[in-house]
Amino acid sequence: MKKILVIHGPNMHLLGQRQKEIYGQATLEDINKELKKLAKECGIEIIDYQSNHEGDIVDKIGSANIEKFSAILINPAAYTHTSVAIRDAILSVNLPTVEVHLSNIYSREDFRHKSLIAPVVHGQISGFGVNSYLLGLQAVIGIIKK
Amino acid sequence: MKKILVIHGPNMHLLGQRQKEIYGQATLEDINKELKKLAKECGIEIIDYQSNHEGDIVDKIGSANIEKFSAILINPAAYTHTSVAIRDAILSVNLPTVEVHLSNIYSREDFRHKSLIAPVVHGQISGFGVNSYLLGLQAVIGIIKK
Amino acid sequence: MKKILVIHGPNMHLLGQRQKEIYGQATLEDINKELKKLAKECGIEIIDYQSNHEGDIVDKIGSANIEKFSAILINPAAYTHTSVAIRDAILSVNLPTVEVHLSNIYSREDFRHKSLIAPVVHGQISGFGVNSYLLGLQAVIGIIKK
Amino acid sequence: MKKILVIHGPNMHLLGQRQKEIYGQATLEDINKELKKLAKECGIEIIDYQSNHEGDIVDKIGSANIEKFSAILINPAAYTHTSVAIRDAILSVNLPTVEVHLSNIYSREDFRHKSLIAPVVHGQISGFGVNSYLLGLQAVIGIIKK
Amino acid sequence: MKKILVIHGPNMHLLGQRQKEIYGQATLEDINKELKKLAKECGIEIIDYQSNHEGDIVDKIGSANIEKFSAILINPAAYTHTSVAIRDAILSVNLPTVEVHLSNIYSREDFRHKSLIAPVVHGQISGFGVNSYLLGLQAVIGIIKK
Amino acid sequence: MKKILVIHGPNMHLLGQRQKEIYGQATLEDINKELKKLAKECGIEIIDYQSNHEGDIVDKIGSANIEKFSAILINPAAYTHTSVAIRDAILSVNLPTVEVHLSNIYSREDFRHKSLIAPVVHGQISGFGVNSYLLGLQAVIGIIKK
Amino acid sequence: MKKILVIHGPNMHLLGQRQKEIYGQATLEDINKELKKLAKECGIEIIDYQSNHEGDIVDKIGSANIEKFSAILINPAAYTHTSVAIRDAILSVNLPTVEVHLSNIYSREDFRHKSLIAPVVHGQISGFGVNSYLLGLQAVIGIIKK
Amino acid sequence: MKKILVIHGPNMHLLGQRQKEIYGQATLEDINKELKKLAKECGIEIIDYQSNHEGDIVDKIGSANIEKFSAILINPAAYTHTSVAIRDAILSVNLPTVEVHLSNIYSREDFRHKSLIAPVVHGQISGFGVNSYLLGLQAVIGIIKK
Amino acid sequence: MKKILVIHGPNMHLLGQRQKEIYGQATLEDINKELKKLAKECGIEIIDYQSNHEGDIVDKIGSANIEKFSAILINPAAYTHTSVAIRDAILSVNLPTVEVHLSNIYSREDFRHKSLIAPVVHGQISGFGVNSYLLGLQAVIGIIKK
Amino acid sequence: MKKILVIHGPNMHLLGQRQKEIYGQATLEDINKELKKLAKECGIEIIDYQSNHEGDIVDKIGSANIEKFSAILINPAAYTHTSVAIRDAILSVNLPTVEVHLSNIYSREDFRHKSLIAPVVHGQISGFGVNSYLLGLQAVIGIIKK
Amino acid sequence: MKKILVIHGPNMHLLGQRQKEIYGQATLEDINKELKKLAKECGIEIIDYQSNHEGDIVDKIGSANIEKFSAILINPAAYTHTSVAIRDAILSVNLPTVEVHLSNIYSREDFRHKSLIAPVVHGQISGFGVNSYLLGLQAVIGIIKK
Amino acid sequence: MKKILVIHGPNMHLLGQRQKEIYGQATLEDINKELKKLAKECGIEIIDYQSNHEGDIVDKIGSANIEKFSAILINPAAYTHTSVAIRDAILSVNLPTVEVHLSNIYSREDFRHKSLIAPVVHGQISGFGVNSYLLGLQAVIGIIKK
Repeated sequence: MKKILVIHGPNMHLLGQRQKEIYGQATLEDINKELKKLAKECGIEIIDYQSNHEGDIVDKIGSANIEKFSAILINPAAYTHTSVAIRDAILSVNLPTVEVHLSNIYSREDFRHKSLIAPVVHGQISGFGVNSYLLGLQAVIGIIKK
Repeated sequence: MKKILVIHGPNMHLLGQRQKEIYGQATLEDINKELKKLAKECGIEIIDYQSNHEGDIVDKIGSANIEKFSAILINPAAYTHTSVAIRDAILSVNLPTVEVHLSNIYSREDFRHKSLIAPVVHGQISGFGVNSYLLGLQAVIGIIKK
Repeated sequence: MKKILVIHGPNMHLLGQRQKEIYGQATLEDINKELKKLAKECGIEIIDYQSNHEGDIVDKIGSANIEKFSAILINPAAYTHTSVAIRDAILSVNLPTVEVHLSNIYSREDFRHKSLIAPVVHGQISGFGVNSYLLGLQAVIGIIKK
Repeated sequence: MKKILVIHGPNMHLLGQRQKEIYGQATLEDINKELKKLAKECGIEIIDYQSNHEGDIVDKIGSANIEKFSAILINPAAYTHTSVAIRDAILSVNLPTVEVHLSNIYSREDFRHKSLIAPVVHGQISGFGVNSYLLGLQAVIGIIKK
Repeated sequence: MKKILVIHGPNMHLLGQRQKEIYGQATLEDINKELKKLAKECGIEIIDYQSNHEGDIVDKIGSANIEKFSAILINPAAYTHTSVAIRDAILSVNLPTVEVHLSNIYSREDFRHKSLIAPVVHGQISGFGVNSYLLGLQAVIGIIKK
Repeated sequence: MKKILVIHGPNMHLLGQRQKEIYGQATLEDINKELKKLAKECGIEIIDYQSNHEGDIVDKIGSANIEKFSAILINPAAYTHTSVAIRDAILSVNLPTVEVHLSNIYSREDFRHKSLIAPVVHGQISGFGVNSYLLGLQAVIGIIKK
Repeated sequence: MKKILVIHGPNMHLLGQRQKEIYGQATLEDINKELKKLAKECGIEIIDYQSNHEGDIVDKIGSANIEKFSAILINPAAYTHTSVAIRDAILSVNLPTVEVHLSNIYSREDFRHKSLIAPVVHGQISGFGVNSYLLGLQAVIGIIKK
Repeated sequence: MKKILVIHGPNMHLLGQRQKEIYGQATLEDINKELKKLAKECGIEIIDYQSNHEGDIVDKIGSANIEKFSAILINPAAYTHTSVAIRDAILSVNLPTVEVHLSNIYSREDFRHKSLIAPVVHGQISGFGVNSYLLGLQAVIGIIKK
Repeated sequence: MKKILVIHGPNMHLLGQRQKEIYGQATLEDINKELKKLAKECGIEIIDYQSNHEGDIVDKIGSANIEKFSAILINPAAYTHTSVAIRDAILSVNLPTVEVHLSNIYSREDFRHKSLIAPVVHGQISGFGVNSYLLGLQAVIGIIKK
Repeated sequence: MKKILVIHGPNMHLLGQRQKEIYGQATLEDINKELKKLAKECGIEIIDYQSNHEGDIVDKIGSANIEKFSAILINPAAYTHTSVAIRDAILSVNLPTVEVHLSNIYSREDFRHKSLIAPVVHGQISGFGVNSYLLGLQAVIGIIKK
Repeated sequence: MKKILVIHGPNMHLLGQRQKEIYGQATLEDINKELKKLAKECGIEIIDYQSNHEGDIVDKIGSANIEKFSAILINPAAYTHTSVAIRDAILSVNLPTVEVHLSNIYSREDFRHKSLIAPVVHGQISGFGVNSYLLGLQAVIGIIKK
Repeated sequence: MKKILVIHGPNMHLLGQRQKEIYGQATLEDINKELKKLAKECGIEIIDYQSNHEGDIVDKIGSANIEKFSAILINPAAYTHTSVAIRDAILSVNLPTVEVHLSNIYSREDFRHKSLIAPVVHGQISGFGVNSYLLGLQAVIGIIKK
């Protein structure tokens, strides 16, 4: 069974408490449950990982080949706009990668319009709340099943 | 049965012949067929529309309320980066709207990184080829079914 | 009797339904009626024209000399910020031209602060709702009566 | 009878002598006379004020509520492009305000294309010579009569 | 006999009346006649096309392969600086294309110094009046005869 | 007893009436009273000065050495962003100077994020309403007591 | 007794050894002692925390609600200019927050003039050495006591 | 005998006390004396004027024709970089004008490299201390004697 | 017989060896031969000149009037983007001048998109390899024969 | 024996697997071995350290004085372009520091052309693969042996 | 007797023929004569040097110490805006240097507003035609006589 | 025996006299001696060349293939930041090339941070004084020995 690494960036552990008008009511646990349910239906295993540490996320991505992941689904959150290290990690492991965002980053502050991650991933999905993750999972499965 | 307006921007009628290394092998007809199949499964009707004319697209969006559309799925193609008129049309009709792109616009020329449309739509999906449309349709259905 | 060409740009046909908090309650028909009433009082004929097509507006302006117009009153709407073609058309026919806007374009999004049309017209009026048109008509009559 | 404060910015006392190819032949006195004539017809009183001092203009605007003005008509002239203090004064008194310019500021030097005042007023009129003031007065009367 | 598609952008139908100090005395008809005369001498057929509509030009270019054109000679006029759609159409049909301008676009307003079309054509010729077209035709014939 | 010069910039005389959602309910008189109370407790004399005139403020600062002030507490208000003359005056008298702002200037319009004064003062305090002044007074006393 | 979280950003543990001409002689321990003394006088408890890790600081802020903190006093140091993650953490916990800097960041390198943190905090104090912290503590107490 | 108006901008009254490493030891009185001595030798009368008020300087320049001045020698000091009003005043009176600076403004802060005044004067002299004024006077005399 | 000065800029002597994928196989000698053949057919004499020295090219252009040249055909090569001196030389001699480039400078590095020479010449031709020179020669002959 | 701290930034542990066309075949272990061999020949001890965590690198540099290092050799990798914290750490410990890069950062993406570290180190070496490290070690030894 | 090196930049040998509306009627010989006359009166020897070659000017400046020059008077002409090499040469010889321009460079094209030379010379004089040189000579003599 | 061309850019002949605080005490002769000693040890011949003329350096590089050089070591000095011609020459001869700088160009003026040469060479070394050359020579030998 193929494994997909799901990475949640900084402050995502606060979902459900954090700026609900932007990020909605669902908790990170809710999202992971929905993702696992969908993955199961597709015959895919999901490992979820959350960290507030850029370095942890770089470590995790860097180990993705050794840990036999077939693809990565990532919401880099705040690091979307500031992390060259995560960008380089994605380039280093060279796996199909999909970037997702709960909110529409293009209707928020100017600095959120620019993603350092987007140019090195397969594609990007933003603005659909929890559904961004579910669509992203379908997208990533679509790629590895080709 | 709810109706969704699917708009294909300029040069999309050339899909299948046009820069295949970027846009793939599928023709516009192929895309429309796949969209209709998926829509049917979801109990939704789809009306597809392609034009190379910015004004035609503005006309079409402007009539969406009168024509009883519930939502819009749009690939603005080249007009993504230059059309304030389409942006204003979307704002005018005030329907749930999803923007899709076949290619990952963030890994192409600098001027393609900026969408005038993205700040006024619900969300954006880019980089998954034909699948961008199918994910986009699911996204838009997700919104109108909420 | 002198004739003035009144041009309404894209999405202006949706006035009265469209973003009322910005554009107000009046319909395009209401505006045209008020303009014609005022024109009549001044012994001037008005021909109104609305199109969502940049090319149509260019065509219309381009024919203004042949159609014996003495001046142009234009609300270029979204094309204010993107159309070099309309700018060039105005330069080509070389008639007194006044630019009007319903909303105050200087208190909206940054990209609306820059008009490609303003440097080539006689003057600009923005922010007074329907009154922008009526003031604009007086302005243009003022010029042709000099 | 309602009172409107008319403010003329720096160097406006030199009208009639100053760069006539840009500003025309009329003197400031001529403008004030025409404004008063029009005001009288509309049942409005006008108080005109000219100063070359940014601080004087800020003082005058700041006293507009105490002096029972209903609205402000202002040609900030050179201070259009440099005065945050006048902008803040307008925000502070919170009266209907209209900005006018004799010349078309959008067809002159680049630094004249940006008005610090425009985003905080009701609307702006530029390019019609003395008529800019008369149209501006009509605009401001239109607002306070609503 | 090989066919070349000659496209004239917006406002080109007004040549001979329009800003003669910049564009000269020749009409569009004059230009087409001279082009046809030269083409005939070279054993080439020319089809000329003028439109003020970006969408028409995109349509026309998009049909160039089906209509068996061997190459394109285009004066995109105002659309030079604003049309990603025409750029994409040229990329889509992948035919030898030459861009021409009557005036020297580099000695005019700043926004005319940047061509969205130039990076995707074979070469560019600007500043020689009607001769720009004749040189452009020779250039395009040079390419297809190689 | 040491004397501190307290300068209030343009429109500060309108406090209590002006944009209360930003600047709060306190009047300038209230602020001066609180400052004097605190100063007295610290064995310091305070002279307060308000003007809407950049030149007045420059005059006042320029006389600070002759008038035997030991330090300056200044809220330059709108002149924060536009006055090189006040900056130069502060450099000229070379006294300990502290800059304060009632509102958080970094969460307002872009042009308010840049202070021409900040690089030449000892420190800056912004965002605490009346308390910005009281903290600023403590800061300036801290410096002159060192 | 109310608790305030005091966060010291990267390299603050080196205070007293590090660039003394900029940061002064006091060690971090000295600062914490002075803060605790002042807090005690005000009937407030202080918990201090220093880390060189952006992720640690995000973790700590993210737990502020659960750990029952009433407010945050933060010197983000180098992360002031680069951390969207800390900005988002502050937005997520939604507690009164004050930003302090030992040095005057506006008289140093250009990149230090822009704080990503300032737009989301209550206010900012910079330039007073150890006193910046003491004034900041007073500011934060002022807010939570209102 | 021809009269030249010599204008000294803000903070120039503090010369001799102010940042001596930049501006030198001479007082404004010293400069005026030297200018008068040189003027006398050339058969020219000099009227000197200093103000910290932008408006005063605009008033003074505006009266130059009525007061029968033949030319202006101006050190706009801080207003060099911020005053459109002084620029417009110079344009309004249309007299030969020379701009001088004691210090080399091109080797100081970036914002001092740009003069709003320079494009509208005859010429500019900067960097020679008191000698800038004497050379400037010679320059202005050279112009009016032509 | 009229004489045209043909100037080849730096590194053009290496043609035929240098980056053939960009500049093609022809040597500078080949180009000069073809130019002379065409010139002869048109009854024109050509003098060719190559130098890697900006100063040499300025010298040569500066002597064009004395040496009785009727026009200049120039490929400024690398100096296109950096030489104000060559621009000034062209302005100084005031002869019809045509700028040519072998490669399409608009599809190469960003800094090659800006020509300092283009705004002061009659017209520019780029992208046609050796043919750029031949078309350029025709263009320049077209001008001097008018 | 003097000790040099060698720091390898994020993703350097993946060398040998990661983008070999850019970074080459050597592993981090290979580099460390070669560095130690060279160090030994020079009578210097080397301690190598790799981390993907910005905070770890800041911690390590911050302890360099206490751990008695004489100098630092650092490849900040992705943090080159984003870390003010590492820059500040280098400034804090004030040891001779040399920055190295395997690839030529000036021939890659634009954002890699700007190093936040370079202005505060002794010198920089980039583009020579493993040899960048060996040259860097020689450079740092050259400095501490002076 | 002290010697001053007078350097005339590119195209200055064409004075008297070149763009007379900007540069006037005087030839370079005229200027040199006037300079020598003035120098003689001041007991100074002048050596004049003109070259169109940046390298020649760098050579000449570089030899100024060996050739026993006391100061340099330079009109860098076109190299004002492009030559770091001349800037570095001036820094290298460390002699009093004055920069002059015939025309007012601040009222011409944008790229002429920025001098690479100005920040490293004693002062700059621009806009007075031949008189710029004479004033410049006086300025330089003033410096070396101090 | 392989030959390496060593090029020293403008003002390098003044080393030892020129800004010693930046460039150190060593003369160009000293550097050449040290380079030759090191080259000899490596079995390599070195030809050194210095010129203040951009054109000379372009000539020299352009002849590198004919003169049988295997590689180039270049300190472009001031031309680093302004010479497209030297960049193109390096591209034209297509030899291994290393760029060196005595000073750390990234800690000097802003315009020195950008090298036009760096993107087209193998690698760059800056900041180590004479040692930059010696390390550069080792680097270039490393490349040609691979």
